[in-house]
Amino acid sequence: MIERIAILGTGLLGTSAGLALRAAGFRGSITGWNRGAEGGRAALAMGAVDALSSDPLHAARESQVVLLAVPIYATLDWMEKLSGVLGSEHLVTDVGSTKAQITAAAGRLFNTPERAAFLPGHPMAGKERGGAALGDAMLFRGAVWLFTDDPAWQRSPASMALVKDWREWVEAMGSKTLDLDAARHDELVGWVSHLPQFVATALSALLEEEVGEAPELKDVGGRALREMTRLGASPYSMWRDIAYTNTEAVQTALFALERRLAHLRENLRTPELRDEFEQANRFRRDQ
Amino acid sequence: MIERIAILGTGLLGTSAGLALRAAGFRGSITGWNRGAEGGRAALAMGAVDALSSDPLHAARESQVVLLAVPIYATLDWMEKLSGVLGSEHLVTDVGSTKAQITAAAGRLFNTPERAAFLPGHPMAGKERGGAALGDAMLFRGAVWLFTDDPAWQRSPASMALVKDWREWVEAMGSKTLDLDAARHDELVGWVSHLPQFVATALSALLEEEVGEAPELKDVGGRALREMTRLGASPYSMWRDIAYTNTEAVQTALFALERRLAHLRENLRTPELRDEFEQANRFRRDQ
Repeated sequence: MIERIAILGTGLLGTSAGLALRAAGFRGSITGWNRGAEGGRAALAMGAVDALSSDPLHAARESQVVLLAVPIYATLDWMEKLSGVLGSEHLVTDVGSTKAQITAAAGRLFNTPERAAFLPGHPMAGKERGGAALGDAMLFRGAVWLFTDDPAWQRSPASMALVKDWREWVEAMGSKTLDLDAARHDELVGWVSHLPQFVATALSALLEEEVGEAPELKDVGGRALREMTRLGASPYSMWRDIAYTNTEAVQTALFALERRLAHLRENLRTPELRDEFEQANRFRRDQ
Repeated sequence: MIERIAILGTGLLGTSAGLALRAAGFRGSITGWNRGAEGGRAALAMGAVDALSSDPLHAARESQVVLLAVPIYATLDWMEKLSGVLGSEHLVTDVGSTKAQITAAAGRLFNTPERAAFLPGHPMAGKERGGAALGDAMLFRGAVWLFTDDPAWQRSPASMALVKDWREWVEAMGSKTLDLDAARHDELVGWVSHLPQFVATALSALLEEEVGEAPELKDVGGRALREMTRLGASPYSMWRDIAYTNTEAVQTALFALERRLAHLRENLRTPELRDEFEQANRFRRDQ
């Protein structure tokens, strides 16, 4: 069973995972590595990791489970490096927001009986700002943690046991696990996660132009405006990789919303407006 | 000073105003009237009003201040009726979400030395669902309460004193007052209030179509999706009047957002995306 974990990337998600594992009763070792020294030190000070490593490949080899908690392209880079140094007694898993490219790389570089296992994962949790300092043991509580495992992959018995055990730790951290095909995953999160983010970004950027010079006017919007623009604080550094690796799904969703807004705009004084409100009401009622 | 208030319409805002006045120490009488019997009874049971009237024009005449807390077209109807029965010892005020038509009617029907005063008001507070049962003494705390008073109006000394006193009660309920020109008000709320609502409606309606048949998939979106669609629960009955009386401003705002989303969609892989995120970040940073 899992006794040694390495967390590569102690930003918001990596730090929160370390804290959540501890809160769920994990008693083994957690070694951390972070590109920036400050984030590593913060994670260590918070108790999310119990040691920092300056040699992440060594730390990975010494652990049973490697959690990659870095942006998507960095995850793909680490996958290349790790596949050469890990073996059938290792599991690598990640938290990347798009899964098609990562899952394809997992099939190419991992998941044979002789190689390490790679379990592509995506916890639907986060905050509009990142960084170790915002790490939170409760971040994954009540969230859905998606996996895009491929049933055709052949793994060693040792790495299969680690996969099973990691899924149980994910549930112990308070998440509900859900398995999806990687392509379906990317399409789905295009609608329910990426579209809301890009709408909040566009709305915030537009309002900065329209009322940004009179900050007191932002107060007028109250709670509704604050909620609808909270995600406007999300960093480009994280969303760039998502935009690059899920371009088509995001474009489809954005175009659909543009048409929907135009329809609403053309029907502000017709009964179509009632139909739109009623359909929106249904979405919320089922939730 | 104000000792007798009539609240016409004991929905969410009317009931909350009654409760907030009591919480702020108002010791005079509050008489309520509501079109539906149930809402009136709920407001009475909650202590938002201390009596219900079946003759709202009589209740208005017996009071010093009449608070109209009904949809916009109903407000315009009441203004016609009340102007014939009230005099220079009365103040009428309202909570309508658009102010151009109401303020024009206030100039035509009220606000001479012989007539009642009408102070057009708009508390920027609410919930995505209405009704007396959700009434909340804290609803106006920290909110901005807009007025679109016209400095050219000539009022009797008695009604001017009532206006001054009502503004003080609004502040006692916890709101910050802000005076705007009526046309500027409607343009501003088109951006910071109506646009966010119509975006939430369009987004919720679209997602109902895309993922509505698989309710478990809505969980995947987590907090971000819940926030971005909370206003999707707002009722058509309230927003219809807003769409009708602020059509041009809402159309301008919706069209601007459509173009912004298209720009973002066309630049998912260019540095323009960074500019959009940075502009959105600025909006949130100043807030």
